[in-house]
Amino acid sequence: MARSNRIFALFFALVFLFTSFAVTRADEGMWIFGNPPLKQLKEKYNFEPSQAWLDHARLAACRLNNGGSGSFVSADGLVLTNHHVARSLLAKLSTEKRDLLKTGFYARTRAEELKCQDLEINVLYSLEDVTAQIQAAAQKAPDAKGAETLRKSEAARIEKESTDRTGLKSTVIGLYEGGEYWLYRFKKYTDIRMVFAPEAQAAEFGGDYDNFSYPRYALDFAFLRVYENDKPVKLEHYYKWSAKGAAEKELVFVVGNPGSTDRLRTVAQLEYQRDHGNLMQLKSLLRRRDALLEYSKTSAEAARRASDTISSINNSLKRLQGQQEGLQSQKLMQQKIREEQDLRGKVAANPEWQKLYGSSWDEMAALFPAYTPMAKRQFYSNLNASRLGQIALQIVQYGAEVTKPNADRLAAYRDSNLESFKFALLSPAPIYGDFEEAVLTARLEEILAELGPADPFVQACLNGKTPSEVAHSAISQTKLSDVAFRKSLIEGGKAAVEASTDPLIVIARRIDPISRDLTKWIQDNFEGQQTAAGEKIARARFAAYGRSIAPDANFSIRLSYGVVKGYELNTTLVPYKTTFAGLFDRAESFDHREPFNVAPQILARRAKIDQTVPMDFVYTPDTIGGNSGSPVINRNGEVVGVNFDSNVHRFVSRYTYTEETGRAIAVHSSAIIETLRKIYDAGPLADEIQGK
Amino acid sequence: MARSNRIFALFFALVFLFTSFAVTRADEGMWIFGNPPLKQLKEKYNFEPSQAWLDHARLAACRLNNGGSGSFVSADGLVLTNHHVARSLLAKLSTEKRDLLKTGFYARTRAEELKCQDLEINVLYSLEDVTAQIQAAAQKAPDAKGAETLRKSEAARIEKESTDRTGLKSTVIGLYEGGEYWLYRFKKYTDIRMVFAPEAQAAEFGGDYDNFSYPRYALDFAFLRVYENDKPVKLEHYYKWSAKGAAEKELVFVVGNPGSTDRLRTVAQLEYQRDHGNLMQLKSLLRRRDALLEYSKTSAEAARRASDTISSINNSLKRLQGQQEGLQSQKLMQQKIREEQDLRGKVAANPEWQKLYGSSWDEMAALFPAYTPMAKRQFYSNLNASRLGQIALQIVQYGAEVTKPNADRLAAYRDSNLESFKFALLSPAPIYGDFEEAVLTARLEEILAELGPADPFVQACLNGKTPSEVAHSAISQTKLSDVAFRKSLIEGGKAAVEASTDPLIVIARRIDPISRDLTKWIQDNFEGQQTAAGEKIARARFAAYGRSIAPDANFSIRLSYGVVKGYELNTTLVPYKTTFAGLFDRAESFDHREPFNVAPQILARRAKIDQTVPMDFVYTPDTIGGNSGSPVINRNGEVVGVNFDSNVHRFVSRYTYTEETGRAIAVHSSAIIETLRKIYDAGPLADEIQGK
Repeated sequence: MARSNRIFALFFALVFLFTSFAVTRADEGMWIFGNPPLKQLKEKYNFEPSQAWLDHARLAACRLNNGGSGSFVSADGLVLTNHHVARSLLAKLSTEKRDLLKTGFYARTRAEELKCQDLEINVLYSLEDVTAQIQAAAQKAPDAKGAETLRKSEAARIEKESTDRTGLKSTVIGLYEGGEYWLYRFKKYTDIRMVFAPEAQAAEFGGDYDNFSYPRYALDFAFLRVYENDKPVKLEHYYKWSAKGAAEKELVFVVGNPGSTDRLRTVAQLEYQRDHGNLMQLKSLLRRRDALLEYSKTSAEAARRASDTISSINNSLKRLQGQQEGLQSQKLMQQKIREEQDLRGKVAANPEWQKLYGSSWDEMAALFPAYTPMAKRQFYSNLNASRLGQIALQIVQYGAEVTKPNADRLAAYRDSNLESFKFALLSPAPIYGDFEEAVLTARLEEILAELGPADPFVQACLNGKTPSEVAHSAISQTKLSDVAFRKSLIEGGKAAVEASTDPLIVIARRIDPISRDLTKWIQDNFEGQQTAAGEKIARARFAAYGRSIAPDANFSIRLSYGVVKGYELNTTLVPYKTTFAGLFDRAESFDHREPFNVAPQILARRAKIDQTVPMDFVYTPDTIGGNSGSPVINRNGEVVGVNFDSNVHRFVSRYTYTEETGRAIAVHSSAIIETLRKIYDAGPLADEIQGK
Repeated sequence: MARSNRIFALFFALVFLFTSFAVTRADEGMWIFGNPPLKQLKEKYNFEPSQAWLDHARLAACRLNNGGSGSFVSADGLVLTNHHVARSLLAKLSTEKRDLLKTGFYARTRAEELKCQDLEINVLYSLEDVTAQIQAAAQKAPDAKGAETLRKSEAARIEKESTDRTGLKSTVIGLYEGGEYWLYRFKKYTDIRMVFAPEAQAAEFGGDYDNFSYPRYALDFAFLRVYENDKPVKLEHYYKWSAKGAAEKELVFVVGNPGSTDRLRTVAQLEYQRDHGNLMQLKSLLRRRDALLEYSKTSAEAARRASDTISSINNSLKRLQGQQEGLQSQKLMQQKIREEQDLRGKVAANPEWQKLYGSSWDEMAALFPAYTPMAKRQFYSNLNASRLGQIALQIVQYGAEVTKPNADRLAAYRDSNLESFKFALLSPAPIYGDFEEAVLTARLEEILAELGPADPFVQACLNGKTPSEVAHSAISQTKLSDVAFRKSLIEGGKAAVEASTDPLIVIARRIDPISRDLTKWIQDNFEGQQTAAGEKIARARFAAYGRSIAPDANFSIRLSYGVVKGYELNTTLVPYKTTFAGLFDRAESFDHREPFNVAPQILARRAKIDQTVPMDFVYTPDTIGGNSGSPVINRNGEVVGVNFDSNVHRFVSRYTYTEETGRAIAVHSSAIIETLRKIYDAGPLADEIQGK
């Protein structure tokens, strides 16, 4: 049997006539600008970007702190991003009578541009390797727990010193599981205005079904504008618009902020994710979504209020399930085991390395038995699902933290983060009581079910009452929806918080010590040890492979490269691009049934549209969630598209890069121009980005 | 781990929002008209077809003996089938200067209709259960080998008696692995003329890549006309054309001739296929295709001559590989083991059944160790890959067989088959010497490699020379390309064959006894025993489940039922139909690169076509190769499409029915009308089928 299977596998490989795409080296890696993939670009694509090219690429890109990426596309601060990144902004700007998700939005004049309530945009102005300083500080500690404390305080010191000196938002970020530390200095913008968004139906054609699918027919783009001092910023660095857009086989780059990958994790860490971490998240998201679906049934307005959150949860669920399927597959785990064995083998073969790093993997694995039950308690010991519940705890924690020395505070309350923290906390975006009550009730029911009635966090929350009683009473009586009230508590400091009788603040005061205890336990018994083992493994990896492997993603700016390219699937070819004709085909194929109905304004202009214009396209550069809204640029640094998704074959991106069928998906730059000019009568906007 | 996997599986099942299609009972089964699925149709679809409905459905359908199906669609003998079924006919009607595959064909008048050289069409006029007679005859034998001989002679007797009495072509067919025997009486047509075919590029858009794929944009249809006495036949039974064509969720039927399934086979039989049978076929087809590809490189004309065969081999390869993947999957084999265990369990629980049938599965399994090496010898001991090699052996065998009593002959030479045999043997279709030499050389090299130089068949073929020497000498000197020469040998009988010095006849005379010995060994040591065990298992199955399971397919007419329905794939939905807009999208998506270029005549009429017209569609009724060209009809017996393919998820159809994602694919009836009227200026043909 084994023999015939092998023979068959051989036949199978020989059989298909398909053009096989030349694969010389995988286009893997989300690279930091401090270590760009110059060697790979030279060897594989004969491209040698100058430092000026790299600096420009970095400075024309930006991070949207609601979890997405964007790019500057005019000298006047115009930002290109995804509709689904702007979705929560549009939702917050909408009311029962003005539903911008339904109608789309176009500000024909600057005066009509709508101010977003709580979006912060960051541009990475400069970066600096501070690994030596952080690691030197940590070495003074007697143990892993102490080292972690020293690393944090050194990072806080470096950040503060930088902010004081430059005025820029300064953050120390860790890379390679603690193998490197970099100081990133950001220019920060907080006056962001909505310029253009198509109807949600145009951006999300195919809805949850087509999310993560390809071929795809989504116009998932939007334009914002960055203001300073009530005027559009004047920018030196912005991307020019490509005249033709993405072409097949073309070298392209994605510049954005990929959220999180776990590719350098050990097998033990991945097994924890597979057997505990992912399952908790899945279960919790499902419960939350089901509660929102129930709430949505109560009225059309309730459905509108919940739609953005439901859409976001569905997105997370699909990705998380795909990740979990990957972890549960033999293929992925075997690959991870092989990779680990390879590195451990190299370490074992070198006595010095073996002495320094040899025990790290076992040390890592040994952490999880004790961590697992505490991680579960921590996962459930918060009310973040409810915006008001989250605000209450943040206010209580803020009151306590700001009185401490900077280096001793919880990370969110360090000086370098305080401005952004307050900006988010004091957002005037509407908070709906009925929505909050539904969400808080569901959360309280969940923690009761998961942690049991005897758990201290559960007791602190419920105080002898039922989840619905607590949620109804707290949400109906709290004043935290009022921004001025929140501001008064922040300004009043610890004393004001301690004196408050607001029912949510009262609950938060009971919760806070429990939350702190859990955080402390995890810091003392897990985080420091995990960093110590991770750092040793990172050093082993540097020793064995150099810096030829990119660090894991952490929602900081990265450069990915590769080509515009289709793929083979189920014995046929999937094309590199789609066209407007395909949109009408797919809609018609479902007899225009939702969510496969063409958005009204597009349908109305059907005859005007050139059906051969490219709509979406796929490419190999490495991406993951957080890259939404990233510019896709060509060798000349021109925008050829805006990244908005990846296909299902990339669900495993968190753990590995798949070049065979995994692809990222963008809206083609030509589709944006065609749409602005022929559907939405937004010629002036098209002129602005095309520099006309 | 096991526990968390189960929990996860539960989540996974709960998670997706997708509309789940109501599944009450699978639409499985290719039913004979002697046992139509009346109960299932009534229960699931509340449809009760009358006997007249069933008779009409059967009499308006036909079998094309080159391996496809068709239907009558006008009173004047017009036959609807697939372009790919008509492909070999079009190839034979083509010359270097008139390439009907490239240009398509339309006979504007009856006089222009081109006579096909060797196509026979059969219509099943009547059918009769003769199980009791056949089984009674077999019971007179002392052992399995003798019983097989008696079954065959009784079948031959029944066939001859029927032909003598009715004048109809009469064949006894076995069903349920020997559980039933039916006498089928066919009306036979041999004057078939080509009426219409689009360009091959329109019929095969996407080429080998899109073969077995969906969504699909293929106009895979053609029209033939049946003549008798040089006039179009006048038909009482033909299908009317549906005004609207297939609609989503509509109940539809496929009436056609599915080639071959192995769903009722035992696990031991399937293991033989998986470990030996399929692998031999795959390896041989690959070798043959590679030889043809080499030959194709020699000139454009060589490429034209080989293209039809290559296309057919590629089709077989893709299907065979899919079947093999299915057999190698845990899922399928586990299902087969469960099914077998269920039946064996029911048998074991009933002492009488156990006594009668209990040993059958072990008896079946015991046959394969001895059979396997002999099956390999038989598989390689023929020259059928070469048309001339095949003709030579057929002539030699004919000479010997027709002198024997009818019941003693090899099946192909029984009286009931002789007319069809001669019609095929004496086809005037062109045979190309260089093509034959290439194919024969490859075949001789293959048998030498597989059987070794000491094998008697190899020695009989090569006689001490090399494969290329033998092939060159035999093909360059044989006169078998000449139909008159073939006819003279047939008419001259055994004496003429024995006297012939034609080099291929000489080789065939040396081969014939070896081939007979192998056939005899297999008849005596395998076939009878397999039938005996199979018959017992069939009886056990009838006893346990009644006739609620359809028999395996055997290229005789069947009725399948189900609905027009899309499916879920990779978390999104695949629509039930495609449109002309999708054709242009897919072509444009590949920048019109072959094989994704739109056929010239369609491209020229792009603006004239209604892009919203349905092109292809999918549905659940059970089909397999041989169903190509089958009509898809609605409750009213009207044509709503013509079946031409199934998707990759049906590769396992040979072994099991898959309702979840497996679908058959048809050209929509509206696409045929749109195409005839707006692209090919064939309005009169459209009028004829629409009854205008």
